[in-house]
Amino acid sequence: MKNVLQPLKYEREVLMLLDQRLLPLEEVYITAKTIEDCFRAIQDMVVRGAPLIGFTGIWGLALYLKNNPKVVLPQFEQAAEYLKSARPTAVNLAYEIDRCVVMARKETHLNALYPKLVEFAQKEMNNLYEKNLAMAKFAEAELTKIYGDRPLNLMTICNTGTLACGVLGTALGVIVHLHQQKKVKSVYASETRPYLQGSRLTSFELIKEGIDHEIVVEGAASYLMRNKMVDAIFAGADRIVENGDTANKVGTSSLSIIAKHYGIPFFIVAPVSSFDLEMKTGDEIEIELRDPNEILKYKGAHIAHPDAKALNPSFDVTDHSCITGILCENGAINPVTVENVRKVVGV
Amino acid sequence: MKNVLQPLKYEREVLMLLDQRLLPLEEVYITAKTIEDCFRAIQDMVVRGAPLIGFTGIWGLALYLKNNPKVVLPQFEQAAEYLKSARPTAVNLAYEIDRCVVMARKETHLNALYPKLVEFAQKEMNNLYEKNLAMAKFAEAELTKIYGDRPLNLMTICNTGTLACGVLGTALGVIVHLHQQKKVKSVYASETRPYLQGSRLTSFELIKEGIDHEIVVEGAASYLMRNKMVDAIFAGADRIVENGDTANKVGTSSLSIIAKHYGIPFFIVAPVSSFDLEMKTGDEIEIELRDPNEILKYKGAHIAHPDAKALNPSFDVTDHSCITGILCENGAINPVTVENVRKVVGV
Repeated sequence: MKNVLQPLKYEREVLMLLDQRLLPLEEVYITAKTIEDCFRAIQDMVVRGAPLIGFTGIWGLALYLKNNPKVVLPQFEQAAEYLKSARPTAVNLAYEIDRCVVMARKETHLNALYPKLVEFAQKEMNNLYEKNLAMAKFAEAELTKIYGDRPLNLMTICNTGTLACGVLGTALGVIVHLHQQKKVKSVYASETRPYLQGSRLTSFELIKEGIDHEIVVEGAASYLMRNKMVDAIFAGADRIVENGDTANKVGTSSLSIIAKHYGIPFFIVAPVSSFDLEMKTGDEIEIELRDPNEILKYKGAHIAHPDAKALNPSFDVTDHSCITGILCENGAINPVTVENVRKVVGV
Repeated sequence: MKNVLQPLKYEREVLMLLDQRLLPLEEVYITAKTIEDCFRAIQDMVVRGAPLIGFTGIWGLALYLKNNPKVVLPQFEQAAEYLKSARPTAVNLAYEIDRCVVMARKETHLNALYPKLVEFAQKEMNNLYEKNLAMAKFAEAELTKIYGDRPLNLMTICNTGTLACGVLGTALGVIVHLHQQKKVKSVYASETRPYLQGSRLTSFELIKEGIDHEIVVEGAASYLMRNKMVDAIFAGADRIVENGDTANKVGTSSLSIIAKHYGIPFFIVAPVSSFDLEMKTGDEIEIELRDPNEILKYKGAHIAHPDAKALNPSFDVTDHSCITGILCENGAINPVTVENVRKVVGV
């Protein structure tokens, strides 16, 4: 069962993109009919999240062929380079577009490629959905081991759902899947300062999926767990290293320590592609410091005194000892050990 | 050595009150020349914090006598009731005003009372300063036991300084005192969502006192401590019960658990008047739930979707097992046990 909320839809040969810049207050779809429309949607952040940007790239090339059925390979390759330049640092975008170019090079006549690209885009989205669903089912099995089949109170941080992935998602995908299985009582969405992805995006997704939830400040984690209001916590990952140490949005590590203190299961949900087994421990992960104004101001207006300074680490490292299990499309890593990471990830 | 920042000053028979509603962007003193000026300053939240409101009450009655040297006792008592009604739930306000009335009842001629009230107000502020300083010195001794005399990196949450107390303050008072002793390297001020007292007020006080600091989001606590950037943490208290469990601003308990995980000393700083030994454990403390809009909106504008809900516990309970020591004007409670609480608090 798919999500109610779809940030990307292809209907009657027109691409519909949810304008994520306007969320959560306005829900407006932008109609993309040309490669230029897709370029602008990527560049102007109408779409966000690595997988969703990649999918938009494939659809952009499909629309290019639909509108220009007589192009030849050099023109197509030029269009591909143009589209990649919309977000040069987006690895997924380049990856998906390069695969389209490989497909193009195998065609005698490019006009045969349009339906194949449409199919490819849909297949890529379905593949990711199947991977996300596999993670969610492994998570479901972990919870059943602990709690049986009773509906649970869950907690999450940041935004890791369909708005980022285009399909189900990782940690939030688990919650949506469990809700579809009638195993969710309620959700606490951590607001996720400073950028407020929990308040703005996760809460919006939960509203759309019809899942009971309340937003809480990060500081409320101990209040909730001391009062036995949380049964399990799910978070995503930006990078997981060999011993299971995990870099994710700042606040994740704090949450995991509080969960461990109260004996509450804490899970990381991430695809195999998030693992970096070249790194032995989380100490090797460099943490990006972002603009202090994300903390000092709100929408341009000062919160703090103009002379105030802030330290804004964007991520933190969750120690493997505070993680109950890591769910990827290959299975559950539980307990989190080097051996289990290598066994499940398969390298 | 007093604070650089003074939210209440009495100069040339005029009361000067820092308008805390305009902080941290504007630093404006309101001139209070009459009891009505003091009434409005209390009612309109120009002044905040229980002790500071109490002091403003005494000064209000002093100004009343200065402006009306011929009043008799019934008029003075009426003025006292009027001033109490500016904030009927403020215990400190009623307490200080009632003591002024007791003084008035001992006078044959009330015109002798004006200089005595001025002296009383100054004495009460000095008394609180001496108590705050005593706590700070006990804190200093605790740190010296652990770290010797080297300058330290400290962390605090919410606002517990001179803006709330009128004088030095509790947890932030410790930091200001240590800075005056040249024992502070740098401070991390937790922004304290949802009401942002850390960003708005604590950072402002630290700027005024010339103390190096950075504001951080609550979620960054584990990042800081994992990277050994914090030597000790100081927080205030709204209520401390017999076993040392402490209610304070939401986020305090989360911070204490993370500190315990990393083995970093975590101290509570509060006057004897904050202890409630009728309660045996923190489980008996009722936690106030405040307006969800503090989380859902910023200055009236929606952050989250209009249908979103939030849970906004204003306080949390820090378990005594996560507190290294409690500092009050009588001494240090360390380790935190029922016996030590009773011994130091003296009941």
